[in-house]
Amino acid sequence: MTITTGLQLSSLITAEGELRLSLDDVAIPAPRADQVVVRIEASPLNPSDLGLLLGPADLSTIKAGGSADRPTVTASVAPAILPSLQARLGEAMAVGNEGAGVVVDAGDDAKHLIGRTVALLGGSMYSQYRVMKASDALVLPEGTTAAQGASCFVNPLTALAMVETMRAEGHTALVHTAAASNLGQMLNRICIADGVPLVNIVRSEAQAKILTDIGAKYVVDSTTPDFRTKLIDALMETGATLAFDAVGGGPLAGQIIAAMEVAATRKMTDYSRYGSTTHKQVYIYGVLDLRPTEIGRNTGMAWGIGGFLLTYFLMKAGPEVGQRMRARVAAELTTTFASHYTSEISLAEALQPEIIAAYAKKATGEKFLINPSKGL
Amino acid sequence: MTITTGLQLSSLITAEGELRLSLDDVAIPAPRADQVVVRIEASPLNPSDLGLLLGPADLSTIKAGGSADRPTVTASVAPAILPSLQARLGEAMAVGNEGAGVVVDAGDDAKHLIGRTVALLGGSMYSQYRVMKASDALVLPEGTTAAQGASCFVNPLTALAMVETMRAEGHTALVHTAAASNLGQMLNRICIADGVPLVNIVRSEAQAKILTDIGAKYVVDSTTPDFRTKLIDALMETGATLAFDAVGGGPLAGQIIAAMEVAATRKMTDYSRYGSTTHKQVYIYGVLDLRPTEIGRNTGMAWGIGGFLLTYFLMKAGPEVGQRMRARVAAELTTTFASHYTSEISLAEALQPEIIAAYAKKATGEKFLINPSKGL
Repeated sequence: MTITTGLQLSSLITAEGELRLSLDDVAIPAPRADQVVVRIEASPLNPSDLGLLLGPADLSTIKAGGSADRPTVTASVAPAILPSLQARLGEAMAVGNEGAGVVVDAGDDAKHLIGRTVALLGGSMYSQYRVMKASDALVLPEGTTAAQGASCFVNPLTALAMVETMRAEGHTALVHTAAASNLGQMLNRICIADGVPLVNIVRSEAQAKILTDIGAKYVVDSTTPDFRTKLIDALMETGATLAFDAVGGGPLAGQIIAAMEVAATRKMTDYSRYGSTTHKQVYIYGVLDLRPTEIGRNTGMAWGIGGFLLTYFLMKAGPEVGQRMRARVAAELTTTFASHYTSEISLAEALQPEIIAAYAKKATGEKFLINPSKGL
Repeated sequence: MTITTGLQLSSLITAEGELRLSLDDVAIPAPRADQVVVRIEASPLNPSDLGLLLGPADLSTIKAGGSADRPTVTASVAPAILPSLQARLGEAMAVGNEGAGVVVDAGDDAKHLIGRTVALLGGSMYSQYRVMKASDALVLPEGTTAAQGASCFVNPLTALAMVETMRAEGHTALVHTAAASNLGQMLNRICIADGVPLVNIVRSEAQAKILTDIGAKYVVDSTTPDFRTKLIDALMETGATLAFDAVGGGPLAGQIIAAMEVAATRKMTDYSRYGSTTHKQVYIYGVLDLRPTEIGRNTGMAWGIGGFLLTYFLMKAGPEVGQRMRARVAAELTTTFASHYTSEISLAEALQPEIIAAYAKKATGEKFLINPSKGL
């Protein structure tokens, strides 16, 4: 089958501060000898995709336009934010970090892959077709669906990177926030399998239940009055001194470090005005809360906080570690690394204002999957 | 000369929340074969000493008591803070991290040191006499006064540790806040000698002048309206991606990281919604501002912030690095590492409420030296 054009979702922010989402026909080049053409059938809407897709647009200003099969959406971006977006202004950005689909065409060296379902990482996945090097495609076991393989990279590798980081930096247990997310559930399965104590911080009883149902031992709810006490107890018991935080802004990261410090000083016998010598670390990998991160003066002196990005981790860890992590994902794709989606939408549906409002909420327990082959 | 007792300043916080400072007679043991008895003649009041001396007491409640030669001081500590002080409640804490004085007695193996002026690190320096192992005393060159040798450790080693950390973590230039302090002046002299670009952040014109007078090239005043622009310019020029911050609380640390990120993204050609890949780091080593530290959402993902303590640095760096740093301090004690004091006070004066109010301000450019041999 020779494919010559396909639809691609693109996100543009103009110099005047208007976000424009559209579906554009793009040319699909004939594959080179080592390339495959993949018909994308499943690509998740991860928080990291939303950042590029919607940028910092004010969603209360959203307006639909275009036609039924070529819809467009516009929304305003506050002028004060535009300077920080300088490098993307006026550029149509393709979106979608990862996805999966079926190989429909291939160059001479990759013909054997035609018909196979593969998983891809590399951007522009909210597209009908994607041309990539065959060696960059993760060939999924026979019988695996595109939906099952859609989230092979971002969440599974991030969850594994947390455990890798824990070991590399000398910690023996973990704390995770927004812990009932797809990623959080994966992390629980990894930690249970690997015997790593994991303290899950959630924001509702319903989220706590999701985790206890899959066997989580330590679940604390930050909306209850005894949150601090319960957190300290769990930290005393697990000895966790490393947290991965998806909330980012507000007081939570500081509260976690302070609670770790209380747990550490309770184990000390001598007073030191510098607090415990135990190093306490939080890595922020998400920003569900856009306020500034606040760190109080109750951390002792041995603490750190910083940004965490899978890409930077993989660069630092090196190819061997990355390869080991990918192999585990492929082997445990439908068990440890299974993702669950609450809605499957087409490219056109992804540009409907009410659907945008739903996925932009990033509600824990809700997860959207784009199927670029749907409804076309 | 055989010394049997001496005065020692002590700081006690009661379980009921009262800070009590007093001068107590303590027994001075006869030196063992490898020990020296040092008559302390100079010991600085560093911010790190004030934390132990005054704790978190409310200085508006301060009351003087006792007699002229055995004065006492009391002040209240807020009940909410007491749990964090659990380990020191009811314990009389001796104060004074470092100091210098004359060897007045010694054990059999150290008799040759009698009469020499030595510098000491190890606590309890706000005392008339201190017994220590001879090998722990830094013997100062003949002609060095105790006042010249009083600050051989905390500030000089901290300033050197900043440059060591810069090299160890792969940075090539530095930012320093509260930069006109004694420590900040030392850091300027080190950086000028070593060719390390240093961006000094100060809070007044007078402080800026102190630094330009000693040859500082980059000085920015955080109280001026063009602070952000000037800081970004200095960061562009120096390439500094590591800051040591003595302010701690409030927005400053976050502003420095954000300015580093602007400087880094200006050098980028492609847009990334994750910002620059340049790692930007701030270490907080002081807390002149007790508010929470605030980090905004304008840092990119490659950033870190954490506590910095000389002791932890030395433990991590190992004895060879520590030895090299000490040797440099001894060699450059009256040049690079010269400290300046604005007041020399006795132990009794250190307990006068109006003098406490003066040194508790930690005003840049004001520095107090305690001379435990004065007025006794």
